[in-house]
Amino acid sequence: VGERALIRTFTAGLRPRDARLLIGPGDDAAVVRPAGSLAVTSTDTTVLGVHLPLDDPRATPAVVGHRSLGTALSDLAAMGVPAGEAYVALTVPPDWDDDDVLAAVAGLEDLARATGTTVAGGDVTAGPALVVTVTVVGWAASEDALLRRDRALAGDLVGVTGTLGGSGAGLAIVLGDVAVAEAAVDPQDADTLVERYLRPLPRLEEGTALVAAGVRCGIDLSDGVAADAVHVAAASGVVLEIDLERLPRQAGVDPVALALGTDPAELAATAGEDYELLITAPPSVAGALTGVTWIGRVLEPEAPAGPGVRLLRGGAPVVLDGFEHRAD
Amino acid sequence: VGERALIRTFTAGLRPRDARLLIGPGDDAAVVRPAGSLAVTSTDTTVLGVHLPLDDPRATPAVVGHRSLGTALSDLAAMGVPAGEAYVALTVPPDWDDDDVLAAVAGLEDLARATGTTVAGGDVTAGPALVVTVTVVGWAASEDALLRRDRALAGDLVGVTGTLGGSGAGLAIVLGDVAVAEAAVDPQDADTLVERYLRPLPRLEEGTALVAAGVRCGIDLSDGVAADAVHVAAASGVVLEIDLERLPRQAGVDPVALALGTDPAELAATAGEDYELLITAPPSVAGALTGVTWIGRVLEPEAPAGPGVRLLRGGAPVVLDGFEHRAD
Repeated sequence: VGERALIRTFTAGLRPRDARLLIGPGDDAAVVRPAGSLAVTSTDTTVLGVHLPLDDPRATPAVVGHRSLGTALSDLAAMGVPAGEAYVALTVPPDWDDDDVLAAVAGLEDLARATGTTVAGGDVTAGPALVVTVTVVGWAASEDALLRRDRALAGDLVGVTGTLGGSGAGLAIVLGDVAVAEAAVDPQDADTLVERYLRPLPRLEEGTALVAAGVRCGIDLSDGVAADAVHVAAASGVVLEIDLERLPRQAGVDPVALALGTDPAELAATAGEDYELLITAPPSVAGALTGVTWIGRVLEPEAPAGPGVRLLRGGAPVVLDGFEHRAD
Repeated sequence: VGERALIRTFTAGLRPRDARLLIGPGDDAAVVRPAGSLAVTSTDTTVLGVHLPLDDPRATPAVVGHRSLGTALSDLAAMGVPAGEAYVALTVPPDWDDDDVLAAVAGLEDLARATGTTVAGGDVTAGPALVVTVTVVGWAASEDALLRRDRALAGDLVGVTGTLGGSGAGLAIVLGDVAVAEAAVDPQDADTLVERYLRPLPRLEEGTALVAAGVRCGIDLSDGVAADAVHVAAASGVVLEIDLERLPRQAGVDPVALALGTDPAELAATAGEDYELLITAPPSVAGALTGVTWIGRVLEPEAPAGPGVRLLRGGAPVVLDGFEHRAD
């Protein structure tokens, strides 16, 4: 398959839905009228065999398309801005044919439609492996209307949207580390966990609602709440104290964790890829929010340890094996 | 090497030089204040083993870095806008170490500095092959201040910047298809040809100067003037008539072409990757331009052939083997 033909296949699958797109695919570059005074841009790569398993029938081209856009859009959710445009660079391996490319574009377009994203441009190239890089752009009204990592203040509460551990539990099922029947996971829960891993949904509406409600500090949970909280602590120069027992766990996470021989709260804290939002907010703002579970608080850093994360269980500090609690 | 460490290595090599960059690498997304009323965005992927030879000592990490940014920026040159920001997604193969990543970032930063580009964000991931996707953003003052593919009009002249064939001749030397000594290529010319292939320079200043001078139609020469002229013809619904004998050839191209058994003009027309600009302009605008070689003219399409490219040699139409002269 030639690159020109691949690009035609790719472009044929796109459905621009944005009057602000003045020049779309077909010229040397896309031309877009900004929807706000600041451009908020993030780029994210998905590699088949690294971010999704190779040779698993569930990791279809449509899943690759959805997941590559979904993880990129999660960074816009984490900044509290709505989705604008996406630019998709697809490196296609020898074992993919035109139908696979079309299916990947269709999977990506389904999520684009659901989130109001316009795929405004891209590139398709032949290569030795499946690599998708998606660059997403959102538009913010002002510097104040953003969720940032460096805005946590001592006295803030720490909260998360949605539930945690579901993606990690889903991955364990996909990898065969847990047999659903033996682990006594409800089959419908198991399907939901696997789907959560395969097709993460960026929390775009939650992000913009949090900014509108006055929240200014947030991050998306790609590495797990324990590790991502360290990024907030490092950027803000504070300590985030998080009570593991207060982490909201998705249905089905507990039996999967037990089958893995892992504490369910620890799985929820470390498995990652849930793409929920972790925020900090002063109590006056936090009190008015709905849909957020409060899991801890922000403290001044203590000498000599400095900024980092303090995990609690039963009210006492705990250290997770192999986990770096301190900021760099 | 872990992904976190790779990202730290990558970020450490960046030198933002743009006061418009409000939030750079380190948060979930970069935040940029637009430098114009329209965002002009393009994304371009470079794969080692596809766009640059594997296991060639000249295809160093620094070359990979330079080339991946250079080919992306060429699309902004082709739109007639100056460089703004770049977002770099690096997929790093197992045989690259930290020093290779640093060298690639340094090569990319060298070109970023030379072109006024700020690397505002990126992603680094481990993978099975070296894949770099660079998304570049430039800012235009208005819809009129652009070079577009669909603006060629019958009566326009067709011109190119710089010289052609150099990158293709350089690639032939790199691949060993031509022995420099046997081909009687001046050794200094040979070095320049190889350098042109390895480190293409986007014609950003030329692009903005052409727009300022009133040119409105242009494309960059990535596939070669013959093929890229077809894109302009297709988008504009016209015929581009190009005289092969008027193509400006880089020093050293002729002996390399002869050693390959190829007509030098044909090499200049088809080898590609010169990243010069092809433009069309009405004679009133064309007369005032400097640094452009006029190679043909724009004609109304003729039935039944329709839009496409008409190549001339000695005043007579010629057909190149395997070349599609007609627009899709």
